[in-house]
This record gives sequence, C-alpha cells and structure tokens, in this order.
Amino acid sequence: MDVAVIGLGQMGAGMAKSLLRAGHHVTVYNRTAARAKVLEGFGAVVGSNLADACKAGVVLTMVADDPALESVVASPGGILESLPKGGVHISSSTISVALSDRLAAEHARQGQIYISAPVFGRPEAAENARLAVVAAGPSAALERCRAIFESLGPKLLILGEKASQANVVKLAGNFLISCVIESLSESFALARKAGVDASVLLEFLTTTLFNAPVYKTYGGLIVKGDHDNAGFPAMLGFKDNRLVLQAAEGAAVPMPMASTIRDRLLTAIARGNAAKDWSVLGRIAAEDAGLTTG
Amino acid sequence: MDVAVIGLGQMGAGMAKSLLRAGHHVTVYNRTAARAKVLEGFGAVVGSNLADACKAGVVLTMVADDPALESVVASPGGILESLPKGGVHISSSTISVALSDRLAAEHARQGQIYISAPVFGRPEAAENARLAVVAAGPSAALERCRAIFESLGPKLLILGEKASQANVVKLAGNFLISCVIESLSESFALARKAGVDASVLLEFLTTTLFNAPVYKTYGGLIVKGDHDNAGFPAMLGFKDNRLVLQAAEGAAVPMPMASTIRDRLLTAIARGNAAKDWSVLGRIAAEDAGLTTG
Amino acid sequence: MDVAVIGLGQMGAGMAKSLLRAGHHVTVYNRTAARAKVLEGFGAVVGSNLADACKAGVVLTMVADDPALESVVASPGGILESLPKGGVHISSSTISVALSDRLAAEHARQGQIYISAPVFGRPEAAENARLAVVAAGPSAALERCRAIFESLGPKLLILGEKASQANVVKLAGNFLISCVIESLSESFALARKAGVDASVLLEFLTTTLFNAPVYKTYGGLIVKGDHDNAGFPAMLGFKDNRLVLQAAEGAAVPMPMASTIRDRLLTAIARGNAAKDWSVLGRIAAEDAGLTTG
Amino acid sequence: MDVAVIGLGQMGAGMAKSLLRAGHHVTVYNRTAARAKVLEGFGAVVGSNLADACKAGVVLTMVADDPALESVVASPGGILESLPKGGVHISSSTISVALSDRLAAEHARQGQIYISAPVFGRPEAAENARLAVVAAGPSAALERCRAIFESLGPKLLILGEKASQANVVKLAGNFLISCVIESLSESFALARKAGVDASVLLEFLTTTLFNAPVYKTYGGLIVKGDHDNAGFPAMLGFKDNRLVLQAAEGAAVPMPMASTIRDRLLTAIARGNAAKDWSVLGRIAAEDAGLTTG
Repeated sequence: MDVAVIGLGQMGAGMAKSLLRAGHHVTVYNRTAARAKVLEGFGAVVGSNLADACKAGVVLTMVADDPALESVVASPGGILESLPKGGVHISSSTISVALSDRLAAEHARQGQIYISAPVFGRPEAAENARLAVVAAGPSAALERCRAIFESLGPKLLILGEKASQANVVKLAGNFLISCVIESLSESFALARKAGVDASVLLEFLTTTLFNAPVYKTYGGLIVKGDHDNAGFPAMLGFKDNRLVLQAAEGAAVPMPMASTIRDRLLTAIARGNAAKDWSVLGRIAAEDAGLTTG
Repeated sequence: MDVAVIGLGQMGAGMAKSLLRAGHHVTVYNRTAARAKVLEGFGAVVGSNLADACKAGVVLTMVADDPALESVVASPGGILESLPKGGVHISSSTISVALSDRLAAEHARQGQIYISAPVFGRPEAAENARLAVVAAGPSAALERCRAIFESLGPKLLILGEKASQANVVKLAGNFLISCVIESLSESFALARKAGVDASVLLEFLTTTLFNAPVYKTYGGLIVKGDHDNAGFPAMLGFKDNRLVLQAAEGAAVPMPMASTIRDRLLTAIARGNAAKDWSVLGRIAAEDAGLTTG
Repeated sequence: MDVAVIGLGQMGAGMAKSLLRAGHHVTVYNRTAARAKVLEGFGAVVGSNLADACKAGVVLTMVADDPALESVVASPGGILESLPKGGVHISSSTISVALSDRLAAEHARQGQIYISAPVFGRPEAAENARLAVVAAGPSAALERCRAIFESLGPKLLILGEKASQANVVKLAGNFLISCVIESLSESFALARKAGVDASVLLEFLTTTLFNAPVYKTYGGLIVKGDHDNAGFPAMLGFKDNRLVLQAAEGAAVPMPMASTIRDRLLTAIARGNAAKDWSVLGRIAAEDAGLTTG
Repeated sequence: MDVAVIGLGQMGAGMAKSLLRAGHHVTVYNRTAARAKVLEGFGAVVGSNLADACKAGVVLTMVADDPALESVVASPGGILESLPKGGVHISSSTISVALSDRLAAEHARQGQIYISAPVFGRPEAAENARLAVVAAGPSAALERCRAIFESLGPKLLILGEKASQANVVKLAGNFLISCVIESLSESFALARKAGVDASVLLEFLTTTLFNAPVYKTYGGLIVKGDHDNAGFPAMLGFKDNRLVLQAAEGAAVPMPMASTIRDRLLTAIARGNAAKDWSVLGRIAAEDAGLTTG
C-alpha cells in the first residue's frame, strides 16, 4: 500500500527499508534531504516536502522527541494541514502520553485519523523486519494499516481505541529495561567488591533465571565497562525516564524505581556521560561503591 | 557417596529425594522427627540426632535462617562438635555473608571444611533435580562434593576458595528477582490507570524482550492479584532483602533499588501481608496508585 | 511609587494591602473583577484591563503557575505588549526557572526589565508586611524597586543579575520545607508504633534542636492529623516539587530526597488528598506503617 | 547522690564533670584507666573495676555502641553480676531498641532496674550541663534519678515505663538531623550549579524559616566544605542510621528518607570519608552533581 515515512534516522530509515522489501509503495521525507536520497536506491520515492509526502494518505512518523513531532505535525505545510481527510497518521516515535492524546484530538478535528504505533527494537531490527509493534487507535484504521505493521516485524500488539495507550506500553517497556540495567549495575558492584568475577556471575544468571536477551546485552556492556558505542545514549534514556515519570504523574501513580533511575541517570549526565550508552549506569554504581572504573 | 541432609523443610526434603534418586547413601535429620520419617520410604536412613547424622562425614544443611543454622552448628552435640576432622559441611541455606565467613573460620579451627552451596529453584525443582547450585570453598572439597552438587540439578557454578562468595551470588540473584517484581508492579499500576489490560501487557512483554520465566511467573501472580498461595512469603523476601542490604553494608556498596524494595516490603508487612507471597508488592503498588485491589 | 498588582488571590491581595499601607499608589487588576473591587476600600485604583494596569510602569504579578503567568504576559493586550519601554515586571509567583529565563529574554527584547522576586510567607504575612523577599535581576531596576520590596516585609535578599536565581532560591526553600514535613511524618509514624506519644515528641523536638516555626507548624498539623484546612494544598506542593525537579534536571543535579517527596505526594494525591494540606504526608506515612488514621 | 559513670569518652567524661559540679559523689570507670585518672582532679573517685563501680548503686553507662554496652553489662564481673538488687542502670549510649528491650528484661530478672536515658548534645554541652535528656523506665526509679538528669542539662523529657521508648526518641532525633544535612546538601548543590552563592542562601534560610542551630551548624559546614574536624564521623552517622532502620524494621515502619540517607552515607564511606564529619554528605551531593570539591 501507499505510505510515507517521515523522519529517517537509523530507526526510520530501517523501517522504510522493511516496508519497501515487503512491497509497499514508500515515499520518504527527511528535513536533511541527504538521508532521504539514500533510500532511492532501495526503491523509495523522495517527497519534496511534508505536504508532498502527505499525498500518500498514510504517513508514518519516526522522529526524535515531542518537539520534533509537534513541528512536523503542526508547522505550516505540516501533516495536520496537508494530510487529506480520512488520511492516517501513524506515530511511531517515543513521545509523551500527553502529546499523543493531543494529536489524537487535533487530527480528529481535521477529519484525519491518528494511530500510535511505537516499536521495540534496535536499528538492525528495524531494517530486518524484526521489530515488535504496539498499536492503538480507531479500530477500522488499525485494520487498514495492519499490513504496514506486519511488514515491520513478527510481533504485533493491538490495543484499543485510545491511541496513547500504545505510548504507555512503550514507556513501561523502556522503564523495565532501565530497571534491568540499574539492578544489574548494583549487583555487579556488590559482586566485584565481594571478589566475585562479574562475568562469571553474568554467565550464571543469564543461563538460569535471567535467560533473556535484555539481561545478556546490558549485562555484557556493564561487565565490560564499554559504554562508548552508544546504542542508546544516557541522554535519550533520561528523556524516556522523564516521559514515564510524566505519564505516572498524569495517572497519579508513584513509581519509586523510576525515581531512582532518574537520579542515577542525572548523576551519569552530570559526570559527563550524557553521550555514553545508558549502560553507563553500571559505571555510576561502581563509582558510588568506591570502585575504580576504566 | 555418604551424605547427611539436615533440615527437611520443602527444600531440604526435595534435595534429599534427588540425592537418593541419584544413588547416594543419605542420612536425614530434622528437629521435628516426623519430617525425617517420611523420607525412609524413599530410602533414607533417619539419624537419631545431629551427632549421629554427622557420622556421614559430609553434612548438607538447609535451614530457615541465620539463627537456625547457628543452632545446628554451634549448639552442644551440633555439627562443630560432631563432624569428624576432615569432614565437610555444605551449607545451602540462604544466610548472611557474615555468618558464612564466621562458619568458614570456625570449621577450619576444628579441622573441618566449610562449603557454601546455596541453590536457586523452588521446591519442585529441588525434588526433581532441577536446581541451580552455586558453590564456593576449598577446591579439593568442592571436587570431593561435585557428585552431590550434580545430583541436585543440571546447573553448577563453582566459585573460588572464599565460601561466602557463593552467598553473595545467591543474595544478588534474589535481589534481581525482587527488582523484577517491583518493576512489574509499578508498570502494571501505570498500565491499569491508563486503561491498558495488564494481562495483555504481560503477554506482550514476556513474548518479546522479557521472555524469561521469572517475568512470566511473577507477572502472572501480580496480574491475577493472587498472593495467598505463598510460594515465597513477603516475610522471607524481607529477610533476604535484609541480607543483601547487610552484605552491601559490609562491602560498602550503596544499593538504592534494594532500599526501595525494603521500604515496599515493609509497607506490605505493615499492612498485614507478611504471610502472602512476595508478589504482593503488586498490590502495594496498586494501592499506592489509588487502585482498588481484590 | 506607582505600582500595579496583577493577580489578587490571597497572596496578591495581601501584598497589595501592604503596599497601600506603605503609601504606594497601587493599581490592581484581576481576571475576576470582584477581587479587585474589594481593594478599592483600601485605597487601590482598579485597572480596567491589563493594558490599563501596565500604565503604572512597574507591574508586580502574583498568579498561580506557569500557564497563568504566560497568559498575563504574552496574551494580546498583555504585559509584554502593554508595558512601556523601560517599565519593570516584578514576578513574585512560584514559577519554573525555565519560564523565568524566557521572560527575562522576552522583556529585554521589548526594552522592558524583568525582575524575579518570589516571596516566603503565608497570606497573613503578605497582608501584614511580614514576607521574606528574594529578588534578582538588573541591579539598577532592583534599586528602583527596593521601596516596594521593603514594603512587603522586613527580610530582603538581593541576588545578582540573573533573575531566575531568585526562583531557584524559592524552590530550594520550598523543597527544604517538604523535607521537614516528610521527615517528621516518618519520625511520628515510628514513634507512634513504638508507643511514644507524638505530641510529647514534637514538644521535645521543637524546644531543643528543632526550635523553628516550620517544625512547630507542620509538626502540629501532622500530630493532630488535621489536613482539611489547606494552607497549602498537596496539589500545589506537588507543583512546587515538580518545579524543583525540573530545575534540578536543567542543572543536572540529582536530588533523591526531592524524588522521594514526589512519590509520597503522588501517593497522597492518588488516594484522594489532592486538596488537603500538604502536611497530609503525615497520614501517608502512617498508612504505610499500617496505622489507622482519622 | 552516689553515681558511677562508666565509659569516659568525650561525652561520658563531660557528663561526669557536670555531675561532679552539681555536687554528686561520682565514681568513674573506663577500660582504659588513663581517662578515669584525669577526672580525679575534678573530684571523682576512680573505680578499680566494674564491680567496684557498681557499689555506687546507680550506674550510668555512656559507651560507643551495642557490643560495648553488652560487654560492660554481661561480661563476668559486669554490671548484671555486680549491681546490687534494687540498683539502677542508667543507659545513656545511643543503642538499638532491641538491646534496650533485652537489657530491661535481664536487669529485671536480677532484681535490678534499667533506665534508658540517651542525651542530645555535643561534648561541650555534656561538660557544661547543657544536654537534653530523654528518660524512660520504671517511674519510681526515674524519680529517684531525677537529680542526676537535672544535673546534665536544663531539658528533661520523661517518657513511660518502657525504657526503649527513650531510644526511639533519640534515634528519631538523629534521623531528623540527618535529613537536615541531606536536604541542605541537595539544595546547595542545586544552588551552586544555578550560580547562587551557597553562603548567601544559607544566611537567608537561617534568618527566616530555618532559624534553628542545626541548620546553621550543618549548613555552615557544608558551605565551607569543611569535614575534617569530625564532630560526628560519617561512620557513626551510619551506625545511627542503621539503628533507626532496625527500629523501623522492628516496628514495621517504612522510612524512605532514612533509606536515602543510608545510601548516601554508604557512598560517602565507600569513597573514603568514613572518618570525616557526616556533613560530608554535602560533598557527595556536590560530586553527584558533577561539581568539583575541595
């Protein structure tokens, strides 16, 4: 089907490739044009501007944060103005629950449909159709877009009519990952000071009770103390933490572990690790325990 | 080989059965004699007292806590007095790092050997030789007892000479489980208040990033709000939390997540849930979010 | 001197009265006109709209929060549009550091001067010239307005050129108060469960080490369990907590105690106490300890 | 009246001097005899051993911690053995609630009376009869000892029959002080990063809402970053924090702020500050905010 992909960072570009490979007719648009150009070689049509891209009738956005999404949606010539009546905006960015609610209302006022469809997975998963997709919004539109979701990965969770519920699930998932990182960080600091080899501990944990990729991946990064190759920078982790705390505030839900993560990430950032991978929490736990770190 | 099992609660009795099934010659002893009697039918010899059991030369203890272990070890006629020189005490209980260090020293003074070998797994795993064992102590004795460890389950981690390192690993493992419970509890409270069906969220999480039994087991208990069948009571969870905080104190390692777990478990206990399964943290998170609970 | 007071809640109205009593020529304006009318009897001139009030050349605003202040400043006919070049906007509301920085820049672009001058004290203090004032901004303007500040209370702290530093001080002060409330709440819960009469404990504490009004006032409210007469509602306390956490985020300062206060206030709100005085944290601490509360 | 003082550290020696000055007949005893000798010049009689000191009939102990007190009470020739029937043991050390309860029972079994009477104040206050005393125990014995308490300082709080309630009050008081230190530490870190002069902020705070000696003393130490002159070392602060957390555990009272203090003090200790004054929490807060410290 016809679909435009707006926002061609690592994730957006990967998703566009997966859509193209699945046979969709994909228009791409990015503020920095060079990133769009690259995708021509994979069969994409490059839209000349947002309005041009919106002609596809279905627009998937994958941008950095709330302000970036507000800009492509609400600026002159943006999606709100340009998408035809009955058109669908699929928002896959990790954004706030509040913005998602607002966009749902604004699109409805324009006779357009807003779907929230954040994804779980890293850039490689995006490019190889291995993402997990969580989608929510009006059910007819969800059905209409099902082929798009299924082209992005094998795992699809369809929630109800309220689009922002998909954002809640995305934020909860990222919160759970952050708890894995911090709990491993504290465990390894304890093990190291007790003289236990952290890599031996990790191997044991991940072949018994914690046999899940998230423990292996982040445990490995913490044990190695290798945080320079930022798959997900601490600064973005902090952004997501802020979003989950905002969602918790909106719903009046105390989340003490999220608060702890906040303080730890803020310490990491204050000590100069904003651009490091968020597994750098392992270094913070080590430093707070008086351990020397690489 | 000859081995005595002391402490025949659900875990100890199950371990004795697995040892018997593997062909070992097992003497059993329990303060309450009835529990020992039951194991005669499985081929065990019932020791008449601690001293009698110690004749086996290798004694495995599986008791409730520090005071219980101190009692079987140091009371008149206890293991310290009764175990022959060169005999081995395998301590599988979840006890403090400090007690483990103390027992290692006291046994050494008696010409005996102390091994710490705590286990991961529930009673069914104990009975069916499915435990994971973490062992530390003098290496010759560890080799001597390898057949025992391997009769308890398929997974064995051998650490170094310092016995208490095995206790650190056990405490770290239980701490990580407690973090899983609390992080899921907070996530589900958020999801529920946002209108997301917690069972749908759980199914999604455990078929994607968090595809590990510990998330499925505890997630299921929290979603159902079923905490009466206490696989592991909140009070014991609190005991383990105290042990990890004590270990952290001994090693000078701040563990803010363990502190959060402490406060949550204490709230659970103060509200009358001491005997409930420690997944009752899910109820506390829900109540703190103003949700009604069953 | 000529000054307009905009925002006539309990605090703003009280400040207007103190200014009138000190002999200033005061114009008042409030969205709801009735509140302005009342002050005519005290000698105030009622401005017909914001633009009219701005003719005073010096405008003091005392409104509820960031959005309210943005509205009176930036809406058509608002202060930015109406204040003459060289005019001064004294902002006394408890607002975010970020908004304060933004307003300083926007006023400067209009050739106007922005001063931040938040105050400490309750409505009675406002009305009786007993406030403590913290002021920051361009020094010439601070001198020009000194007579105004001194009419509001006996205590004046003048900071440097950066207006938002005054907001930081205000937020830090409120954070310290919240810590007093929470630490007393936890102490009284402990005392009560240990059988110690909380009122006896409070009397002892406040006549020895903690001989300060803030301990007496809040300690008294917590001991009595009287939170219905909301001098400062939990919801506003939460707003201020959010502002301090935002300031801490902006400056990259982890504040674990502020995070704890956040979670406690959120619990209070989730359990239906949003409109109660923020000393209701005492009730939350008691409930979490399993104590019955009135 | 006749009274023996056991434990002649800075606090105990000071208390002995105040008792002597008030005209009491004071016997002193200390494990290290030199410290007792010094007090002869002030009129004290030096006891040759614990049993000798116990002849006074009323014994006041002021020692470092639980193990030290257990040793002078329960070791052969100790207070339990040596104090005559009807004799009184006044325990002024900062000890655990659990030990206090245990000593009350043990003394009762010997026909002796146990009073808990911890004190607030620093060594200078002890020496100059400026302490605040909190006493609990059997009321007749409290009356009998009133002259002693009143010789130690102007402020006396008499609680009920249960001696350990006095320990709860002492621990709650120290907890409140620790919250003052940590909340000031976080506030000053925020202020400094926002460019506000911390000494100016402190001066303002302590002349308005926080006009209490505890804010002035600790605020001053934090602002100066002067933690070498350890009035109260971080290690002792950590001991007291442990005692309050244990009391909270015994009473099932979650105390999240006490947990936060625990983690911060543990960080301070892990980073090599165990012997510094516990105002060193100010340095920890600064370091976590990325500030350089002296």
